[in-house]
Amino acid sequence: MSPRRKLSDARRRQILKAAVQVIAEKGLCDTGIKDVADQAGTSPALVIYYFGKKDVLLAEALSFADEHFYAQTADAVAELASARDRLVELVRCSCSVGEAEDDFDDWVLWLDLWARAPRDPDVARDRAAMDRRWRTTIAEIVREGQATGEFAAVDVDAFALRLGALIDGLAIQVVLRDPEVSRERMFELCMATCARELGFPWTPEDQAAVISAAHGRAPGGRAAG
Amino acid sequence: MSPRRKLSDARRRQILKAAVQVIAEKGLCDTGIKDVADQAGTSPALVIYYFGKKDVLLAEALSFADEHFYAQTADAVAELASARDRLVELVRCSCSVGEAEDDFDDWVLWLDLWARAPRDPDVARDRAAMDRRWRTTIAEIVREGQATGEFAAVDVDAFALRLGALIDGLAIQVVLRDPEVSRERMFELCMATCARELGFPWTPEDQAAVISAAHGRAPGGRAAG
Repeated sequence: MSPRRKLSDARRRQILKAAVQVIAEKGLCDTGIKDVADQAGTSPALVIYYFGKKDVLLAEALSFADEHFYAQTADAVAELASARDRLVELVRCSCSVGEAEDDFDDWVLWLDLWARAPRDPDVARDRAAMDRRWRTTIAEIVREGQATGEFAAVDVDAFALRLGALIDGLAIQVVLRDPEVSRERMFELCMATCARELGFPWTPEDQAAVISAAHGRAPGGRAAG
Repeated sequence: MSPRRKLSDARRRQILKAAVQVIAEKGLCDTGIKDVADQAGTSPALVIYYFGKKDVLLAEALSFADEHFYAQTADAVAELASARDRLVELVRCSCSVGEAEDDFDDWVLWLDLWARAPRDPDVARDRAAMDRRWRTTIAEIVREGQATGEFAAVDVDAFALRLGALIDGLAIQVVLRDPEVSRERMFELCMATCARELGFPWTPEDQAAVISAAHGRAPGGRAAG
């Protein structure tokens, strides 16, 4: 990789990080290219050179945050011997339980992404790819657990669709600060579904132990930048 | 009610119907007050007089569509003797199965509502109220079914939260035209969850019979205007 390309990659990352921050704070509708450029300490012309328009910036910022999430989760999950523990860790990361108070805030970018996807084919394609990857990640762990006999013989694709949708639906409530759905409640509801459908025991003590163990480590949620 | 007030209500409904159409087509970001006024055949000044700003217009348009949904669903549900059939009908309406091809399109307004809610307290309040009502509606039917012995003794509030979140999460996939989630697939996944958790039988034949019976009737989905 040439030094010039390396510089460009660093600048690109810097712009995407700035985009995550600015869009999360202001919303896509009220975010201008100039706001992102200011936050990144660069020029609007450079942002346009790299990304063209702000819809693309949003989609790429979320893909970037998603990469970060998968990299962190992959590290955390690789250490775990059982499929059950890997699934628990994946769900815990999605709910950002046992993490810093503001670790869920970037979830708000998904709301903007969903709102733009029906009107922008580039955003729609990136959204579909990210959701496909997410469901595949869930499905792989479930298949591993079925192979080892840890999980019941459920329809894996249907389970992955349902768990993915449940996480999205509950995350909306959490990010919109619904009084009935905290991150801990989200984790509890998701794990109750996993345990019931995949046939493994899951107690309030299990949940408390997982949250307690996560404190002190610092991975991000599904969309954490 | 005076004739003047009656005229205002009709005009108000007309503007809200126009707002549903225009925002569903263009998205909130690219919708101007003038677009809604043109569609409603009235003046921007009048739209501003009634609603102030477009965020409020969106929230009120969705509340209006929600009222319409509950009125229609209440009629359909009132005819049904068993709690199981009432729950099936509620879920079927949410998935718009057995209805016109475009009956799901107004769901796209929820995506805009969610994206605006973190930045607008009025929108956030309306969103929370609509979701609370929705969960209460689910919970009431489940309690009725528990009282008659049709449903198992699950935690009703947790079930209502989970089913509501599952419907939202799957609706996102349907409205964004995800290749893996059709309206029929959404209905199937929701009903599998209801049947498993509440303990009643639900076969592909049951599903086919419900969809077939719904054809020819014309109620709307959760957000249908």
